[in-house]
Amino acid sequence: MQFVNDPREHVAEGLAGLERAWPDLVRWNREPSFIARAQNGEPKVALVAGGGSGHEPLHTGFVGEGMLDAAVPGAIFSSPTAGQLEAATRAADRGRGVVHIIKNYTGDVLNFGIAAELVADAIAVETVLVDDDLATDGSGPGRRGTAAVVAVEKLCGAAAERGWDLPEVAALGRRVAASSRTMALALRPCTHPGEDRPSFDLAPGEIELGVGIHGERGIGRRPVASAAELASLLIDPVADALELGEGDRVILIVNGLGSTHPLELSVMFGEVADRLAARGVEVARSLVGSYVTALDMGGCSITAVRADDELLDLWDAPVRTPGLTW
Amino acid sequence: MQFVNDPREHVAEGLAGLERAWPDLVRWNREPSFIARAQNGEPKVALVAGGGSGHEPLHTGFVGEGMLDAAVPGAIFSSPTAGQLEAATRAADRGRGVVHIIKNYTGDVLNFGIAAELVADAIAVETVLVDDDLATDGSGPGRRGTAAVVAVEKLCGAAAERGWDLPEVAALGRRVAASSRTMALALRPCTHPGEDRPSFDLAPGEIELGVGIHGERGIGRRPVASAAELASLLIDPVADALELGEGDRVILIVNGLGSTHPLELSVMFGEVADRLAARGVEVARSLVGSYVTALDMGGCSITAVRADDELLDLWDAPVRTPGLTW
Repeated sequence: MQFVNDPREHVAEGLAGLERAWPDLVRWNREPSFIARAQNGEPKVALVAGGGSGHEPLHTGFVGEGMLDAAVPGAIFSSPTAGQLEAATRAADRGRGVVHIIKNYTGDVLNFGIAAELVADAIAVETVLVDDDLATDGSGPGRRGTAAVVAVEKLCGAAAERGWDLPEVAALGRRVAASSRTMALALRPCTHPGEDRPSFDLAPGEIELGVGIHGERGIGRRPVASAAELASLLIDPVADALELGEGDRVILIVNGLGSTHPLELSVMFGEVADRLAARGVEVARSLVGSYVTALDMGGCSITAVRADDELLDLWDAPVRTPGLTW
Repeated sequence: MQFVNDPREHVAEGLAGLERAWPDLVRWNREPSFIARAQNGEPKVALVAGGGSGHEPLHTGFVGEGMLDAAVPGAIFSSPTAGQLEAATRAADRGRGVVHIIKNYTGDVLNFGIAAELVADAIAVETVLVDDDLATDGSGPGRRGTAAVVAVEKLCGAAAERGWDLPEVAALGRRVAASSRTMALALRPCTHPGEDRPSFDLAPGEIELGVGIHGERGIGRRPVASAAELASLLIDPVADALELGEGDRVILIVNGLGSTHPLELSVMFGEVADRLAARGVEVARSLVGSYVTALDMGGCSITAVRADDELLDLWDAPVRTPGLTW
C-alpha cells in the first residue's frame, strides 16, 4: 500500500510537490516535464541529468546550486523522451554549453543522443556516461549506471560552479565515472505505485545479489547472512575492480534502495569501512543514506570512488539542493 | 530481513557507524552511550535530547551546529537510562545551563527527571516536554511526543546559538511545543532488527490511523483510500486543533515513518498544502522526508507548527548536522 491518487499522475503530482516544497531552489516545467533551477544565474557550463522516476531523490532532488541545472524525469523506471531532454537542455543552457549526465540504459542513451542532435546547431553538448554497476560487467550493453551518478553530479556541479569550461567538466565527469564501481543487493522487492504485488519475488531468507535499481536480476540469489558477510559480498568486488590498496583514498557511498532504515545503513557503513581499512584504504569522504532508490526496495548499494586531492576539494564545495546540502 | 549482525549490538554498531561517517560533526561516547558534538565551542545554552532508538535520524542525527549538543539513545523503542542522560548533560554543559528536550513518554520523563536531579548542584537544567500527537489527546499520560520534536530542536538550537539565555531558550521550546500538533497513519507495520515478523498486523487494504512511532494503536483501522483522502484524515484534525485559519502561517513537516518513498511524501505534501490553502493558511516553511522513523514502518505523519516572524527567522538560521543541514 502506498500514498497514491491516480497511479498515472503519481510522478507529476510528486514533481508538483517538490516544486512547492522548495520554491526557492527549483521550478517544475510542466509541459514538457522537467525540473530546473528556480533561477539561472551567471554564465557557466550547465549540467542536465535524467532517467526514469522512482529513484528519488535522484535526479530531481539534486537540482540546485553546486549540482544540476535541470533533471528530466521519465515515467516510473522509464526513460524520459527526447523532447523532454531537448527542452531541458535549452532551458538549462547559459551560453557555455551543456553536459548530459547519462546512466547507461539503452533508452536513456538513445533519447539523450537524439536531444543532443536536436540542439546541436545552437548548443554545444558533451556527454558523460555513468556505468558503475559491477553486476553487469562484461554484459552486452555494458555496466548499468547506478549510484555513482550522485558523485558525478556533485563533482561536475562543483567544477561548473567554479567556471571550468565544457570539455573540462565533461572530462572530469568521465574520470569520476571511470573511477567508480558499485555493487547492490536486495533484501525485499519493490512495489509499483498502485499495485498490490511486488515486481519480483524473494523467498524468505533469500537476497538478490547484484540487483539493479529497477529490480533487474543480478548475479544470483544467496541465503541471507550477517551484515558483516553481506558487506563483504558488496565491497570486496568493488575494491578488487578499482584495485584499491594501501594508501588509496575513496569517497564511499552507502546507499539505501528505498525502505532500508538509517540504523541499518550505519551498521553497513561501519562494516564496509572496516573491510577497506583492512586493505589500507582510507574512507576520505562518505555519504550514508537513501539517495538512489528503487521505489520501496529493501537493500543497499555500495559505491567507491577512487579519490585524489582535486576530487576531495570539489566534493567539499558547497551544494544546496532538496536532496543534498552542505 | 535487515542488515544486522547481533541484534543486541545493532544500536551500538549504528552509533559507531554514525561517528565514523561524520567525524567532523559528532563523537560517540561509548560508556555510557551518547552522541555529542565533535567539539564544544563558545559558552552557550546546551540542548540535550534523547529517547528510544529506531527513530533515526532522530535524535542522534540532529547533533551539530545550530541544533543539539548531545543526543542520548536507548535500546530500540526504549528509554535511555538516567545514568546516560546525566553523563550527556554534564558533557554538553558549557556553563550556561542545559535544556532537556523530552518526548512525552513515561520512561523518558522519569529518566530525564532523575538526571536533572543528579546534576542539580552543578548545572541549571530546564525541561521542554514535547506532546504533539493528537491521536492521544485526552489520554491519561497526555499526548505522546512525535515529529514536532524536530521543530523544537531546530528552533531552540538556533536560539541557543544566538546567545539566548536558559529561561529564554526553554520558554521558546515550550511555545513551539504548544504551537505544534501531529497526526500519523501506518500503511505497513515495522519489524524489529533480527525478527522475522512485524510487530503488529495490518490486513491488506487497511491502515492504522493515529499510530504512534512505536506502532502503538491509534484511533482505529480504516480502509485504505487515495492520498488526497488520507491527507485529509491527517491534516484536518491538526488544523482544527491549532485553530488555523485565514492568514495563519505554518511550518509543515511531512514525515515518512521509515519505508515510505520520497515520491509518495511529495504527493502527500501537495495534498496537505492544498487543504491548508483552502483554509487560507500559508505553508511558510516545510520539511518533507523521513526524519522521525519507526524502524521500517510504512506511512507518514503530518505536523503543523503555528509560526510567526520570530520562529521563521530562527528556522532559517544555519544548521549543520548529519540529518539536517542548510
